[in-house]
Amino acid sequence: MNRTFSLLSLLVLLLGGAPLPSRAAEAAKPAAITRIDPTFWWVGMKNPKLQLLVHGPGIGASTASLNYAGVTLDGTQKLENPNYLLVNLSIGTDAKPGKLPLEFKGAKKVKYEYELRARTTPGDKSKVQGINSSDFVYLLMPDRFANGDPSNDVVKSLQETKLDRGQMYARHGGDLKGIEDHFGYLKELGVTAIWPTPIVENDEPKTSYHGYALTDFYAVDPRYGSNDDYVRFVQRAHQQGLKVVHDVVLNHMGTSGYLVKDAPAKDWFHQWPTFTRSNFRDAAFNDPYVSQSDRKQFGEGWFDQHMADLNQTNPLVSTYLIQNFLWWVEYTGLDGYRVDTYTYSDRKFLMDWGKALLDEYPQLGMFAETWVQGTAQQAYFARNILPEVDGFKSNMPGVLDFQLQYAINEALTRDAGWTEGISKLYYTLQADWLYEDPARNVVFLDNHDMSRFFSVIGEDLAKYKMGLAWLLTVRGTPQLYYGTEVLMKNYSNPDGKVREDFPGGWAGDKVNLFTAVGRTGPAAEAFTYVSKLANYRKTHPVLHTGKLMHFIPDGGVYTYFRYNDAGETVMVMMNTNKDEKTVDTARMAERLSGYTAATDVVTGATLTDLKSVKIPGRTAWVLELKK
Amino acid sequence: MNRTFSLLSLLVLLLGGAPLPSRAAEAAKPAAITRIDPTFWWVGMKNPKLQLLVHGPGIGASTASLNYAGVTLDGTQKLENPNYLLVNLSIGTDAKPGKLPLEFKGAKKVKYEYELRARTTPGDKSKVQGINSSDFVYLLMPDRFANGDPSNDVVKSLQETKLDRGQMYARHGGDLKGIEDHFGYLKELGVTAIWPTPIVENDEPKTSYHGYALTDFYAVDPRYGSNDDYVRFVQRAHQQGLKVVHDVVLNHMGTSGYLVKDAPAKDWFHQWPTFTRSNFRDAAFNDPYVSQSDRKQFGEGWFDQHMADLNQTNPLVSTYLIQNFLWWVEYTGLDGYRVDTYTYSDRKFLMDWGKALLDEYPQLGMFAETWVQGTAQQAYFARNILPEVDGFKSNMPGVLDFQLQYAINEALTRDAGWTEGISKLYYTLQADWLYEDPARNVVFLDNHDMSRFFSVIGEDLAKYKMGLAWLLTVRGTPQLYYGTEVLMKNYSNPDGKVREDFPGGWAGDKVNLFTAVGRTGPAAEAFTYVSKLANYRKTHPVLHTGKLMHFIPDGGVYTYFRYNDAGETVMVMMNTNKDEKTVDTARMAERLSGYTAATDVVTGATLTDLKSVKIPGRTAWVLELKK
Repeated sequence: MNRTFSLLSLLVLLLGGAPLPSRAAEAAKPAAITRIDPTFWWVGMKNPKLQLLVHGPGIGASTASLNYAGVTLDGTQKLENPNYLLVNLSIGTDAKPGKLPLEFKGAKKVKYEYELRARTTPGDKSKVQGINSSDFVYLLMPDRFANGDPSNDVVKSLQETKLDRGQMYARHGGDLKGIEDHFGYLKELGVTAIWPTPIVENDEPKTSYHGYALTDFYAVDPRYGSNDDYVRFVQRAHQQGLKVVHDVVLNHMGTSGYLVKDAPAKDWFHQWPTFTRSNFRDAAFNDPYVSQSDRKQFGEGWFDQHMADLNQTNPLVSTYLIQNFLWWVEYTGLDGYRVDTYTYSDRKFLMDWGKALLDEYPQLGMFAETWVQGTAQQAYFARNILPEVDGFKSNMPGVLDFQLQYAINEALTRDAGWTEGISKLYYTLQADWLYEDPARNVVFLDNHDMSRFFSVIGEDLAKYKMGLAWLLTVRGTPQLYYGTEVLMKNYSNPDGKVREDFPGGWAGDKVNLFTAVGRTGPAAEAFTYVSKLANYRKTHPVLHTGKLMHFIPDGGVYTYFRYNDAGETVMVMMNTNKDEKTVDTARMAERLSGYTAATDVVTGATLTDLKSVKIPGRTAWVLELKK
Repeated sequence: MNRTFSLLSLLVLLLGGAPLPSRAAEAAKPAAITRIDPTFWWVGMKNPKLQLLVHGPGIGASTASLNYAGVTLDGTQKLENPNYLLVNLSIGTDAKPGKLPLEFKGAKKVKYEYELRARTTPGDKSKVQGINSSDFVYLLMPDRFANGDPSNDVVKSLQETKLDRGQMYARHGGDLKGIEDHFGYLKELGVTAIWPTPIVENDEPKTSYHGYALTDFYAVDPRYGSNDDYVRFVQRAHQQGLKVVHDVVLNHMGTSGYLVKDAPAKDWFHQWPTFTRSNFRDAAFNDPYVSQSDRKQFGEGWFDQHMADLNQTNPLVSTYLIQNFLWWVEYTGLDGYRVDTYTYSDRKFLMDWGKALLDEYPQLGMFAETWVQGTAQQAYFARNILPEVDGFKSNMPGVLDFQLQYAINEALTRDAGWTEGISKLYYTLQADWLYEDPARNVVFLDNHDMSRFFSVIGEDLAKYKMGLAWLLTVRGTPQLYYGTEVLMKNYSNPDGKVREDFPGGWAGDKVNLFTAVGRTGPAAEAFTYVSKLANYRKTHPVLHTGKLMHFIPDGGVYTYFRYNDAGETVMVMMNTNKDEKTVDTARMAERLSGYTAATDVVTGATLTDLKSVKIPGRTAWVLELKK
């Protein structure tokens, strides 16, 4: 990281030009200030403090002053890189929206009108709705879902200059408009929330289509749309009754980002003598027997060559990140954050970040990626019943429930044993006692980093339905990975084909699975099955907030109930055996008492004998009980 | 359980005659009182309360009185069964040892001289030494280890009237004398503590050789010796530097016990309309989604047809059990309790029992059987960092570490993967953060309920040595199952042959593995290996109380260190691969720094290059580091 700052900052000045608010504003301001992060702010935030990261050639040598009613300049701070100056402000409760005149005096005098906006999220119930167990979250990759605006497929100012749908690691052209065009499809499916992989700028030379190598904390990737487009995207989603989950990375950023190329100081990133990758062992985070070398490599090793590891123990970095994620909420009204690589960040930072977000937006949905081993470890990274352990007490409301993902996959691919197969599902749920509220967890069958569910279960439609029935009835917020509803398949290794384009998302696609006409055979059957169950779930709160009671699996059959005080009860019976089983339900009397029949939610068939139930092999029934 | 009490109590009177103190005393007392539990007591216990369970035909209709300096009669209580009367006493600090004259007035007057002894455990450091990580515990089955006294092989007053070494489920004749005869053998092996499966009376008609179907809470099984023999056994063990772990069952007792056959009241045992076995799912103990039926069946279902499930929610049963286990400690000076089927008991009782024992004997060793799934569940049953969960906060100092048993077995039978094989061992230890002190756990490779370790690892001597090297160097108290040191093998199912007689324990055995002469080939090699390591461990506190640091497994090689402030460091390197590996130890600098060489503890060989280490396939090195 020993580079000549001034030369590189010049390079940064020569780049740019994408239609971003921050960059658009550059024309109107003296060339000496290239940008200020946050790009704008609001009056009336709960925390009156604001730290501006001012960037411009040699700006570090300047003094700053301002004159604006209600706003105080608390001071400035130089950084190692002379092209940066930190300006600390206090925004009083009496400050009004407007243009805050900042004046910098150094070799020359520079003025900058910093925008203070009026907040829009308070009082607008369509904004920041949160994510909870009433939702059904649809995870998609914007580059791979649908191409609604071919004009933004290639943006010349960016490093990646071509589109190639034949390459799994190249850009394919999907965008925000493509998602918007299919809001109707998602609603038909029963989805209530959309989680795109990160939509922020990823201006790396290659392989950043996934979005996890951010290069500008304040810009939407122009290949997906402008910042304003994203604001409108969230608005339109809300108008359609769809929420938006914003996928964020706290741990690292793309090496092409201006903060890396013209770093404020070396200590903004973890530095290594030679490139050192993380060991990817979250266990090192809280291992009582950990070596300092393993712990350091876990937390400070880089995720990849293109992903610089942010040093969040630096309070300036911490503040920069916290402000950025407050900014996105207030700016767009997004409903929730999904936090990538949560376990890789600094422990104090994670607590500070979560607290700052939830202090400002208590209703904000938040769930974290915790690709860990064991429920205790997973619960450690969520709000739990534990004391502070090893300096960390998570305030993350929910986590992506990898343990249940392992369990449902095992339940459908391995015969039932004392602990194996369906028993693993039972044991994994039992361990929920460690969470403050396990219903905040997000449950899923697969995601963009995993082999697709339909392939894992051997492309067996009967098992597929069992998995989906479970997903949509178990506690928590279900998440579906795009295309699972139409049986998209493939393995994550070796070719990454779990991120293929959704058929029909591109003009000229031979198959269009977005339409009923285009869906035939098993794909149609699958879509109908998911749609039926998801829409039933949507209108039946018992599947959102109802209590869960399960019965110890017996002979490969697992039965659980969702029930509430309103007298609603949904019974789910899963027979993982190949063959039919007759189940004596005597031991389930405490849940079945008073009920005389049941309706199969998917087929509408009626079950009249609840005492001795014959369930076919490889079947999961979702039954609404009737008095 | 609807039986005629008086008829059965008559039957009880006609039985008996074994040389037990309580029964021996019967001749001297009026026939109307058949026994009083506890059979005797002490002055000067911390808890002054004592509840006597007096048994005799029709005694329930009596009033009681006494006149003894320092002892107060607090009252009496009738039970459902008229053959019982509870007498509540307070024993003041001024009470002296002696014969407490109890007088009962009913249809006739009955006198009973109840013995109050002087305590012997306080001030005698050889008694109640506790069990800790300096120990190496040897688990054996008294019936199967060695037959030191053929005269007690068959005791005619007991139900099982024959000995048959050809039957795995019959009595084989082993006894306390047999164990005593081999104290020398155990010391040569490096053992410091003996854990026999329960030595209390198991007078069932068949299959009670294992000891877990107790029929008299206050009597040693006469086939092993008398109560006095057991007291002497503990004394002699202590004289030889061996501690004694007493194996106890709190959850159930044999149906032939007088407390079952002539039960004080129906509510002393869990009653079912028809025989109902436990579902054996400890998960039901604290499952947030449990049904009452599953929970009831877990805790109140019987362990087996011959094992009546004690109702410890009955405070009288609770007191009976607490007093009994105080009694055994004070009577014998035993060093620790191993608590069988710990998870099956009532939660409040478990807390009360543990507290009562540790209040009286803070130094008492205690560890529990927790054959559960997952470290969180295992830690829940030990002292842990958790708050009270679901009405339970365990005060059990240590547990039998089943999770590590699963892990070491997987490490030696499955190739290394991200989470598989040796990685499972790493992950399992990492989860130690949940315990108050994981070093109190007892680690083991197998036990009397499991397939023998040597069979599980495919009778591979190289893997065997790896397992033993791990057992004797990892944190916690190692436990060895008898015969493992001479490669005894076999599977637990279907024939129970994991409980075969120790070769040489019976006069006339063709092979005698107790002697160096009798041990040849691999059995000799194994014995020498274990003996070498165990004796090294015995004299090296760094392996008892030294800190543990491990390094994330890399390419199937796992390295850990035990080290202390005294500058002692033992390095253990395990290569689970078939082939040799070269390990660059640069990342272990924080433990290796300052050391220039190492001595192989088993072979005495010297390793001079600690920077680049070539370790053969399937090898675990235990290395003492040298400055």
